[in-house]
Amino acid sequence: METLYVELGERSYPIYIGSDLIRADVLAQHIPSSQVMIVTNETVAPLYLDTLLSSLPGFKVDVIRLPDGEAYKTLEHWTLIFDALLSCRHNRTTTLIALGGGVVGDMTGFAAACYQRGVPFIQIPTTLLSQVDSSVGGKTGVNHPMGKNMIGAFHQPVAVIADTQVLNTLPDKELSAGLAEVIKYGLIYDPDFFDWLEHNMEALREKEPTALATAIYKSCRIKADIVAQDERESGVRALLNLGHTFGHAIEAHAGYGAWLHGEAVAAGTMMAVNLSLKEGWLSIADAERIERIFVAAGLPVKPPRDMTESHFRELMAVDKKVVDGSLRLILLEQIGRGVVTGSFSSEHLSATITEMTA
Amino acid sequence: METLYVELGERSYPIYIGSDLIRADVLAQHIPSSQVMIVTNETVAPLYLDTLLSSLPGFKVDVIRLPDGEAYKTLEHWTLIFDALLSCRHNRTTTLIALGGGVVGDMTGFAAACYQRGVPFIQIPTTLLSQVDSSVGGKTGVNHPMGKNMIGAFHQPVAVIADTQVLNTLPDKELSAGLAEVIKYGLIYDPDFFDWLEHNMEALREKEPTALATAIYKSCRIKADIVAQDERESGVRALLNLGHTFGHAIEAHAGYGAWLHGEAVAAGTMMAVNLSLKEGWLSIADAERIERIFVAAGLPVKPPRDMTESHFRELMAVDKKVVDGSLRLILLEQIGRGVVTGSFSSEHLSATITEMTA
Repeated sequence: METLYVELGERSYPIYIGSDLIRADVLAQHIPSSQVMIVTNETVAPLYLDTLLSSLPGFKVDVIRLPDGEAYKTLEHWTLIFDALLSCRHNRTTTLIALGGGVVGDMTGFAAACYQRGVPFIQIPTTLLSQVDSSVGGKTGVNHPMGKNMIGAFHQPVAVIADTQVLNTLPDKELSAGLAEVIKYGLIYDPDFFDWLEHNMEALREKEPTALATAIYKSCRIKADIVAQDERESGVRALLNLGHTFGHAIEAHAGYGAWLHGEAVAAGTMMAVNLSLKEGWLSIADAERIERIFVAAGLPVKPPRDMTESHFRELMAVDKKVVDGSLRLILLEQIGRGVVTGSFSSEHLSATITEMTA
Repeated sequence: METLYVELGERSYPIYIGSDLIRADVLAQHIPSSQVMIVTNETVAPLYLDTLLSSLPGFKVDVIRLPDGEAYKTLEHWTLIFDALLSCRHNRTTTLIALGGGVVGDMTGFAAACYQRGVPFIQIPTTLLSQVDSSVGGKTGVNHPMGKNMIGAFHQPVAVIADTQVLNTLPDKELSAGLAEVIKYGLIYDPDFFDWLEHNMEALREKEPTALATAIYKSCRIKADIVAQDERESGVRALLNLGHTFGHAIEAHAGYGAWLHGEAVAAGTMMAVNLSLKEGWLSIADAERIERIFVAAGLPVKPPRDMTESHFRELMAVDKKVVDGSLRLILLEQIGRGVVTGSFSSEHLSATITEMTA
């Protein structure tokens, strides 16, 4: 087991990374009273709830199961957590445990932020994406019909348990989607990690535990470094959005869920790579390395075939934003160095969209 | 105009106290962008919304009116604020302004805490109670059918405007209820302020602006002192609950809203006074002074006539709590010095309940 400390003053917390970590000796030290509420979903509960329950001897444990999927990341379903907490008479010393992917983690964290004005929560992310993404940063929340993650809070967990063993039941497609974010960390911040990923992609796709633990550790460390510089997202933290502006357009076009977030980010990153190339930053050789690693990770490197130039222009509000100067993108100066910038040629951007949708 | 600074590090903010303060020169400095959302209710809007709107020249201002009353302090009505913010395309630089009493303030503050993970808000409390109570402390939230204020956040305003002029339209009964909390501050913390209140109660009930401004200033200063010592309510802040344990039982018995909160607190405080007397702390003369000031403020000094000893025992869970030692009350060592204590004779408590319900 490796332990990574996310340093945030009095809100610092450990991320435990390794195999077979859903255990009493890991959990109990982070639970201050006898009350625990597990929040999970209908897909994860049959797989890991028993393991978690048997790791909480001596605690008064209640469980709420939410339906599985981004469609249920709503205020309506979020309130079910409060109904459960109050029905089971949990007081302000209770601890919430999120057992599931990003949706469960975001909703549980937000409920913990607001129950009696704040109670502790532990995250046990069960997808690679949530292990490398929502483990760090303290962003919690739910969607509103008019926008994703519009309602939420910054609330740090008291501990995160990233157990590589739970990834054994993760579908390959979701593993690949998580790898998109892992690759992103190398691209924006750490060329050595990118090299390492090139050499270990096969082991990662085969779910080799040591390789997974290394990838998770390095990803979380990079994210923690960036978040520590910018907890409230006013500057450098935007780097984490590499590929996301193009990616969100892809998700919106395909319909959320039709393309996994990580898949859209991979294709979106290739668009950022294409533009970075035109700006004279990346070499062709580096652009090809990036394309190869996404392919090796089982990820798309182009937007959906039916997406046209005008789809992108409209979904990204390109014309309006270019006029008012508000379009900022994350581009790559080189592998391992991302930049947040509004300084790129709008002709280059147009050419990128044209080429990538050809 | 007097200005009281609530010192909370980077979350410090001013409370402006005086007459006729809903003005552009007070407001504009606290609004960082062009977007403003006013949250108010159906009772207050006809009285003061126009004044507020005319104090916001040059801003893009939207308004949402909630129904008036504690019954609407729910998650369902809270979400209407998000619907309005998103429909009117407010971004994360928007500022919310709460124009109303405690319910509007609590709901608006909680919406500001959660909209896009936190935006600034300004409070313009329009009742004496909310001016002296919710102006300080950062508590925001809504009720759940199974408990009051169960869902919420700590979120500090960027400024509070306590305008004595808006109290001119406040019903006398609500002014008295606010005075109950004002008297409480003297009782728990400041004997000189208590003396001052004894001499100025008539002016306060006549809504004399200078007297009101002094009472608000001193009340907020005392609460700010206490909150600065204990922002998250782990110790001394409990003093603010003088009379509240008995008072909540009264409110629950009468049905919330049948007795105003301040009325229940006044009668509850007299029960705490009775018990403090039995414990040998307060003198009979001081107990009589306290009773006289509540009467002078137009407040009840006994629980509702139909409330029996067994109502109190049940609603306060006295027997269970005495057995497990968890019943802690706020008592008075003398006028101006409150204590949070579990060390009182349970016979004395029984005798107090018996006497006060006789």
